[in-house]
Amino acid sequence: MHSFDELLKIFENRLNKENFSHEPKELYAPIDYTLALGGKRIRPVLTLMACDMFGGDINDALPQAIAIELFHNFTLIHDDIMDNAPIRRGKQTVYKKWSSNIAILSGDTLFALAYQYAQIADKSILANVLSVFNRTAIEVCEGQQYDLNFETRNDVSVEEYIHMIKLKTAVLFGASLKIGAIIGGANNEDADKLYNFALNIGLGFQLKDDLLDTYGDESIFGKKTGGDIISNKKTFLYLKALELADEENNRKLTSLFNNDSYSEDEKINSVKSIFSNLKIDEITEKEIDTYFEAGIIDLNSLDLKEDVKAELYDLAFKMIHRDV
Amino acid sequence: MHSFDELLKIFENRLNKENFSHEPKELYAPIDYTLALGGKRIRPVLTLMACDMFGGDINDALPQAIAIELFHNFTLIHDDIMDNAPIRRGKQTVYKKWSSNIAILSGDTLFALAYQYAQIADKSILANVLSVFNRTAIEVCEGQQYDLNFETRNDVSVEEYIHMIKLKTAVLFGASLKIGAIIGGANNEDADKLYNFALNIGLGFQLKDDLLDTYGDESIFGKKTGGDIISNKKTFLYLKALELADEENNRKLTSLFNNDSYSEDEKINSVKSIFSNLKIDEITEKEIDTYFEAGIIDLNSLDLKEDVKAELYDLAFKMIHRDV
Repeated sequence: MHSFDELLKIFENRLNKENFSHEPKELYAPIDYTLALGGKRIRPVLTLMACDMFGGDINDALPQAIAIELFHNFTLIHDDIMDNAPIRRGKQTVYKKWSSNIAILSGDTLFALAYQYAQIADKSILANVLSVFNRTAIEVCEGQQYDLNFETRNDVSVEEYIHMIKLKTAVLFGASLKIGAIIGGANNEDADKLYNFALNIGLGFQLKDDLLDTYGDESIFGKKTGGDIISNKKTFLYLKALELADEENNRKLTSLFNNDSYSEDEKINSVKSIFSNLKIDEITEKEIDTYFEAGIIDLNSLDLKEDVKAELYDLAFKMIHRDV
Repeated sequence: MHSFDELLKIFENRLNKENFSHEPKELYAPIDYTLALGGKRIRPVLTLMACDMFGGDINDALPQAIAIELFHNFTLIHDDIMDNAPIRRGKQTVYKKWSSNIAILSGDTLFALAYQYAQIADKSILANVLSVFNRTAIEVCEGQQYDLNFETRNDVSVEEYIHMIKLKTAVLFGASLKIGAIIGGANNEDADKLYNFALNIGLGFQLKDDLLDTYGDESIFGKKTGGDIISNKKTFLYLKALELADEENNRKLTSLFNNDSYSEDEKINSVKSIFSNLKIDEITEKEIDTYFEAGIIDLNSLDLKEDVKAELYDLAFKMIHRDV
């Protein structure tokens, strides 16, 4: 078994060898730029790791790992337009640096490039791999649409939120592992177990995101906390607080999120004070643990040696128990 | 051999049976809306026709025909955002009726749905079909980028223009036929001949578009002519005129296309008068004929019975010699 760091290095080496600098440069420069921004590369490493776990040759999974990473970056480019996000990974987003049109079209191209890599698989598994890839691509779009819908809705339930982040975030972790497992020679049942494992870890991962955005240690987190509160983002923390708050606090919280007259610090402090009275941080931690444990049950149920599963366990642990 | 009208009916029946109304409705309503707007459906019929020509079962080509039509509609939805186009097929464009965000995301979803259909092919040909589909998708994006680039450039050559419309328009006609031919059992050489045939017909088709926009008979064309001139579109007509004009007319034409102080009628009449003095309409007709004839040479070189090729010949003839 290769370690995460080994797989990451193998992936980065291969990605760097791929050439995305074609003509017209207006189309490909934003693709190069986005891929060079890096990111954690968790998804492609998951693909290689799953392939490795089932005794496959990780070289066979590299095209799919690239496909997954390209797809992920395509969604970021388009999401940043829709979310008016100026900064991604510490740099200007594509639509800010160039234009919306360039971001739409280079995103489309990146999506098509992703498929170009996704189809590099043995005849015997190609249809299976692509059907996971396709279904996931569609679900990720659906998740983003729900997320956009939630911006203008005041009656979003925690359950709806979990469904949204499952589609927007978790299924791509699931697909990353499942596709790697298929290439590695796993049977359908085992590939599905890994998929379900990743869904749970993915949900925990996103809830951790929500938690860190409000409760992260700024010196470690690397940016100011409270961003989600400032932008009225209906995260798990907010929705759970609404669910648990009494009528007065419910009204207060809703008003804080629908009123732009507060100063940033005032708003963050008021919201956090309601969150803290309701122990939202602890509740979220507990929820994250629940997803982590549910995931681990699926991982443990795989009939593989413990040391083969250890690397993935460690990665999941780090995804959930991170400070950044 | 089935006729165009028979194949169109078969295609429409099948498309109508497909269900694109899923949740969230904000994402799928624009897809339903776009597909219901119709259009000529030339591309999917080409796929069925090519399959038919080589003795294939057209049912096997229906998923690919749908894939091609979905892909085409995806490009329209995104192009309309980039081109600020308010009207498509007589109705509001998706971005106008809903929003840019909805148009970006429902377009992305339509692209993913296209791939879902594209992959429904026999194992033995799937990789071949998908590599045509992928390459074409990327080329169409490149074509659109060149088109956007041309808007702000004053030194576009006729040759560059032809390269742009080849990518933006002609390759998808090529892919439509080639994929149908592969499914129908054609060998690579024959599939490529059909591809080249379609490239030439596609170029002629686009030049005819340019010609009709300026010289169409408004009572048949169904809309006001001169739209390309009003919007300063660097069509074949304009670029060829710049190439052929003397210094004075060249300056005049450039000034007309870079100056918003003229009234619409004044501008159209002045530009058309320069075009007419240079016989741009005749030159364009001749160019269209040249592409048509080049295409027909490829079609004739196919070792198929004449009556098998007749339906495609007729379709190409109609694509080129249309009034609408």
